[in-house]
Parts: sequence; structure tokens; C-alpha cells
Amino acid sequence: MNQPQDPIQRMAEELAKLPGIGRKSAQRLAYHLAAQPEEQVVALSRALAEGRASIRLCERCYNYTAQQLCAVCRDTRRREDLLCVVRDPRDVAAMERMHDYHGLYHVLHGILSPMDGIGPEDIRIRELLLRLKEGQVKELILATNPDIEGEATAAYIARLAKPLGVKVTRIAHGVPVGSDLEYADEVTLSKAMEGRREL
Amino acid sequence: MNQPQDPIQRMAEELAKLPGIGRKSAQRLAYHLAAQPEEQVVALSRALAEGRASIRLCERCYNYTAQQLCAVCRDTRRREDLLCVVRDPRDVAAMERMHDYHGLYHVLHGILSPMDGIGPEDIRIRELLLRLKEGQVKELILATNPDIEGEATAAYIARLAKPLGVKVTRIAHGVPVGSDLEYADEVTLSKAMEGRREL
Repeated sequence: MNQPQDPIQRMAEELAKLPGIGRKSAQRLAYHLAAQPEEQVVALSRALAEGRASIRLCERCYNYTAQQLCAVCRDTRRREDLLCVVRDPRDVAAMERMHDYHGLYHVLHGILSPMDGIGPEDIRIRELLLRLKEGQVKELILATNPDIEGEATAAYIARLAKPLGVKVTRIAHGVPVGSDLEYADEVTLSKAMEGRREL
Repeated sequence: MNQPQDPIQRMAEELAKLPGIGRKSAQRLAYHLAAQPEEQVVALSRALAEGRASIRLCERCYNYTAQQLCAVCRDTRRREDLLCVVRDPRDVAAMERMHDYHGLYHVLHGILSPMDGIGPEDIRIRELLLRLKEGQVKELILATNPDIEGEATAAYIARLAKPLGVKVTRIAHGVPVGSDLEYADEVTLSKAMEGRREL
């Protein structure tokens, strides 16, 4: 089959660029789409292009939104004295699924990583400090990932935020709920022991 | 987050309609696309919509193509006396990957399945018989899947094709190359024994 004009190949090539979709799955998806009514493929195509075009960053927390402020920042019932720092917008979604946090967010859009040449000026730390200087935030919760870069970024932000008179906290590390102790790695287990609380 | 206007949700909802992509993967893909340059998402979106719009069925074999005839039918080096019957266009792609078959194809676009109410008039059997009546085809290779419907469809076509003076053959069933005998099911094993050849 001739590659460039072949519509199946063209669809498959673009689909294969998506993360987690290999060459074979991409081909399978392309054949699936070829067999779908054209309207359905147009609906997918438009949702992707229009969705991407309408995405901007919330002017306050840098979460994804289609408006000036994101849904969280627009919600007047949220506590303005609690600010949770996360790496990227999908972490906001994860926190919101918990339905248990009622403060605001600050999305860094990245993590400090000297190995990858990502320094403080490459992620939204300056914007975070400006927000803290406004004085409304009483507690800053650092919810970056519990890995090397996440810990380093949390430590870096803590060092800058404390002098501003803000209480700085870090999310707890430990054994995930519903998981099996047997399968927890040693670092997680040792963090779980270290963070033990009296009942 | 408010569902309908949220561009991430809109992208994720459409992506979740694809086979093998669950709600969680769809969300992950949507966040990935949100972080991509807009041109890249537009390229994907256009490849899907334009790809689907340009797909038509080859006038001769009903394979997918963007032209009047598919790449196989346009290739004048293919043997016109060999015709391989497959269920759908992705089976043509699978056969072509083998690089070993030099005849033409006929795509049924379905399989006989009384349970699902699919009869001979719902798939392209009439078109196949018309092709056979043209007299060029000497051997008809039935390459429908080795399952109940595939076998029934092959048997049905064989019954109609033989009176037209065409040699009708069925692809061999047996143990897949590179697989382990231990894991072959009994029916496959018994077919492999039945089809054994002298070396």
C-alpha cells in the first residue's frame, strides 16, 4: 500500500504520536475510525481541535480553563487562605476527585530538574511568590510528587515561602490506602513508619 | 470542574469512545494534548477528519482506498487469477504485511452470523460471485477467521463458487509459528494434526 496518500496510514501515523499508543494500536484505531460514520469522526476531530484551541491558563492559578479564571478559582466557596502547589493541571484534577480539599491551587507547570535544565525561572515559582505576597494565604501545601525532583522542588519553595510568614506543609508519604504492605517499596514503608501517628 | 464547557472533559469524552481507551486513559490523553503545541493537535484533528472523509471502498475489491481502485488492485503485477476472500480491510493489511501473496482480494465487510441477523445479502457475497463469473479467477482462497462464523461463511461461499468452475481453497489451521504447543487449545491442535504433511 502506498503510505503517504493512504488515509488509514495518515490517521494511524498521527494517532501513534499519542503517548501509550503504539504503531499497532494506532492502526487498529484508524481502521476502527474508517468503519465509523463520518459524523462521529468529525465530532472527535472537532472536540480535539476546538478543545485545544479553547484551552488557556487560569490567570490566577495557571490551571487549564476555557475562561479567564478556572472553575476552582471562580468558585467563591473555596477557602482563599489555603493554597496547594501541584506540578501540573492533571494533578489538580486528581486532587479534585478527592472532593475533600476546599482551598485553591497553584500549578507550577513543571518541576525543578537540573538534569533536564529546568530551573526556578522555567516553572511558575515567581508567580507563586507574588501570590503569597498578597497576604491572603495562611497555609501553603506542597503537593508535588514524592520523587527526587518533587521533593527538591518542595524544599526549594519552602525555603522561599517561610520568610513570607506562611505556614508551609508537605503532603504525607506512606502506604497507599487499599494497597498491600507486602508490595510497598522500602522507601515508602520507611516514610510510613516515620510519619506514624498515635491513635 | 464544570463538565460541558471544560475543554479537557470534552476531549476526554470523545477519546473515551475509541475502542480500548477507557475513561482514565482518555483523560490522560486529553491532558497530554492540552500540553502540546496547538499545531500538533490540529494536525491530528485534520488527519482524522480528512482521513475519514477521503476513505472510500475500492470499486473492485471493497478494500479501503482514497482512489477509485485500491493500491493492490492498481498494481498491475498482481496475479488476477488468485482471489483471496477476507472479512474486512484490516485483514488485507495483515495479509499484505506477509509480503508473500501476490493475488487480489475481495473484502466481504462482515461475516455470516445468523445470531446477529447478518445474512448473505448483508455482506459482499453477491459482488464476489459477479467477479467470479467474469472468469479470470482460477483459485479462490477463503481466508475468513478460523472461528464458527468464519468457517460457516467459508463453507457458504465454497458451495456457491464451486459450480462456477473455480478451485476453492481454505487457509490452513494449525499451531501458530513461534508459539508453544503447550499453550495451543485442543481444537487448534487437532486441526494441526489433521493438516499434517509429509516432510
